[in-house]
Amino acid sequence: MTTQLVPTPRTKLKRRAQRGSFDREVVNAILDEGFVCSVAFLHDGKPCVIPTLYARGGDFLILHGSPANRMLRSLCEPGHEACISVFHADALVLARSAFHHSINYRSVVLYAQAEEIVDPDEKLEAMRVVVEHVVPGRWKDVRAPNLEEFRGTLVLRLPIVEASAKIRDLGVIDDEADLELGCWAGLLPLSTRFGTPQPDALLRADTPVPAYVSGYTRAR
Amino acid sequence: MTTQLVPTPRTKLKRRAQRGSFDREVVNAILDEGFVCSVAFLHDGKPCVIPTLYARGGDFLILHGSPANRMLRSLCEPGHEACISVFHADALVLARSAFHHSINYRSVVLYAQAEEIVDPDEKLEAMRVVVEHVVPGRWKDVRAPNLEEFRGTLVLRLPIVEASAKIRDLGVIDDEADLELGCWAGLLPLSTRFGTPQPDALLRADTPVPAYVSGYTRAR
Repeated sequence: MTTQLVPTPRTKLKRRAQRGSFDREVVNAILDEGFVCSVAFLHDGKPCVIPTLYARGGDFLILHGSPANRMLRSLCEPGHEACISVFHADALVLARSAFHHSINYRSVVLYAQAEEIVDPDEKLEAMRVVVEHVVPGRWKDVRAPNLEEFRGTLVLRLPIVEASAKIRDLGVIDDEADLELGCWAGLLPLSTRFGTPQPDALLRADTPVPAYVSGYTRAR
Repeated sequence: MTTQLVPTPRTKLKRRAQRGSFDREVVNAILDEGFVCSVAFLHDGKPCVIPTLYARGGDFLILHGSPANRMLRSLCEPGHEACISVFHADALVLARSAFHHSINYRSVVLYAQAEEIVDPDEKLEAMRVVVEHVVPGRWKDVRAPNLEEFRGTLVLRLPIVEASAKIRDLGVIDDEADLELGCWAGLLPLSTRFGTPQPDALLRADTPVPAYVSGYTRAR
């Protein structure tokens, strides 16, 4: 059984409500496919948006960075709620009229108050979740953070509660009268392509490429 | 000769300033490669971010949508500045330590007050620019907007003046002491892949796929 998130005035779609979803599995699947989000926050009373890496750990979104990071510090202040969006473009939709051109996409929007993870065990686990979110299988192979790195990283969590997904997964929707026009119409799919791994110049030549790199993919 | 945009306290990088660029050509190239931006705006005094399609027309960013679109209406209000970001991920950077993992990317951030394009000629031209930005060559083949569609589209322009680019285009940067670790390190490049065009089910079978669709690419 899937869990339904509770709609709020901010997450409820005003128009084309059928494109919205409050299904936690739908939201999670979109979050799990990506690793870069756009974080909107207030700075001197004005809106700012910064792209940043994220991970999902259970029912929380995890952000991290330098303790000097203006955005992260701002998000920690009580009453300074963030709005975060994640977006995947799936296809260009080429209609017979300019007006009906569109794109197919899946997106999530999340409103939440961030909280710093201060407990050392929880913080280390969140750092592991970040690495494993971006490159599953990586954590066991790399040197874990030392004390200086650990202290030099600010880690925040934001509850995935006030969130919703918005999806367009349709074909071309043309006016009846335009169907006779001679121009091509259809979808041009797009996706993220992962290329050939490029070993670091200082890597020992006999170091095998791990399967999690050579077979890297984002679950869809 | 390239034009330099004037840095402001908001667009000047506080840390790692060498990753920033105020070169208009650099900014334009990043904007021209993409077509989806994240728009941050204020709603009831709180920050919101919504992904939306954009186009670049000269020194302006163009947004469009329904006149009922809350975000677009909000951006038109005097004093309601938008912050817009565009982001391209280029590679995952896998270091030998968890801490030095990173991503290579190119991004642009823009602060601007939006203005509705009301002059009919300018508005139609902006609509053409939007279609041509996303699918160059498309406009001449499709039915232009009729009066109802024209009136039913709100088109905004935002001057690309207070803007900057931020770029990471580096290899793995590991601590000297970690170079002896046996794990693989390097870059995993990523890019957008455009797939096989899928003709609309109602398309006449003898309709050729235009070269701008079969050979679709985003200039890099």
